[in-house]
Amino acid sequence: MSPYELFYWPGIQGRGELIRLALEDAGAPYVDVARERGTGPMLALMRGAGPGLAPFGPPFLRSGSLVLAQTAAILAWLAPRHGLVPAAERARLHAHQLQLTIADFYVEVHDTHHPLGSALYYEEQKPEALRRAEIFRRDRLPLFLGYFEKALERNGGRFAIGRRSSYVDLSLFQVMVGLEYAFPVATRRLARRVRRLQALKERVAARPRVAAYLASERRLPFNPHGIFRAYPELDG
Amino acid sequence: MSPYELFYWPGIQGRGELIRLALEDAGAPYVDVARERGTGPMLALMRGAGPGLAPFGPPFLRSGSLVLAQTAAILAWLAPRHGLVPAAERARLHAHQLQLTIADFYVEVHDTHHPLGSALYYEEQKPEALRRAEIFRRDRLPLFLGYFEKALERNGGRFAIGRRSSYVDLSLFQVMVGLEYAFPVATRRLARRVRRLQALKERVAARPRVAAYLASERRLPFNPHGIFRAYPELDG
Repeated sequence: MSPYELFYWPGIQGRGELIRLALEDAGAPYVDVARERGTGPMLALMRGAGPGLAPFGPPFLRSGSLVLAQTAAILAWLAPRHGLVPAAERARLHAHQLQLTIADFYVEVHDTHHPLGSALYYEEQKPEALRRAEIFRRDRLPLFLGYFEKALERNGGRFAIGRRSSYVDLSLFQVMVGLEYAFPVATRRLARRVRRLQALKERVAARPRVAAYLASERRLPFNPHGIFRAYPELDG
Repeated sequence: MSPYELFYWPGIQGRGELIRLALEDAGAPYVDVARERGTGPMLALMRGAGPGLAPFGPPFLRSGSLVLAQTAAILAWLAPRHGLVPAAERARLHAHQLQLTIADFYVEVHDTHHPLGSALYYEEQKPEALRRAEIFRRDRLPLFLGYFEKALERNGGRFAIGRRSSYVDLSLFQVMVGLEYAFPVATRRLARRVRRLQALKERVAARPRVAAYLASERRLPFNPHGIFRAYPELDG
């Protein structure tokens, strides 16, 4: 099989990281196109250089003649090809539902530092960010983490979906390490209420291919350009 | 077949309307549960009264023992059962990708009046809303509508996906009528650049089952509680 081509911004983890983690855990060969060849081919595909529907934005994945965008849609397509989700239809539907809820949470995390949108720099919307981040820490963070914790609990405690690790677990790992980077204080305060998520994070980090990936240069560090940003003033 | 049960807030179109339009256009029998029986059963399912994964929030659909949440996931599941999407895998993938981009746009429309989140009333975040709406009208609205218009154009001009009407067309109709309600001035200004979207909107409105639905009491009116809100100050 020729390698997948992943198109994503080269300097950040962002939403692309949820795809990278799935590809890495599956041991699937892939090229991180913008990191190896610059953003030119990616931007060309967004402008419509390929056939059929153009992506609105990255991440998107190319496999043969298929170009597929939207993180959760990519994962739903990729996962059954690599054993990253149970085969049963209901499990796949619920994995996708949960992944889309993670996507909703990503928007809210992003909007803590960009409540007015990405057209302005953080510094141009800092008072608004302070207000939004306060609400995030007080309401939204406990609500979403509580929901994910409950989903784990109701499924036996160890896996988000089914009886073994799936791509949703990999994304929940990324959520947890991202939050610990961006909101260390607020996240620590919730630690006792999300013990299953914490344990899941440790187990995912110890998966051999994930551990090798995290130790490699392929894993970009968190930085002040991604979705999870360490602005101490937004952590209360 | 016993009717689908749709769970959504009873007083607004919101995201639930994208499901209602699909069910109506398909002529599929359904119960709009919260409108007929109140929100109790819906809130109970969100709290985990059912088996398996609980929805984070509405809309969700129950069919037999399946409870499925997330608007785009519901549509992707529902559409092939009712001929609302081509059978070919690639068309279904791209329909879903496009629907998820519509979902992203919905968040941005919502955030024009709630840039700090739903925990505060509009009146408590009005200065922020004015700033965000300005950026929305200037950047985001033309960007998204231009993208949808281009997607239509590249697919022959009449349908978003494939060679006949699909659930994505129904959602694009809802986007257009919602924008005309919430941002009449800004939307009119773009009219010449989105002629295919305008024509699509007219064609969808004329589909017999859609027309019958829109004329019925089942179609809730737009109002100041939904995603599309007519606040003239946000329309510039």
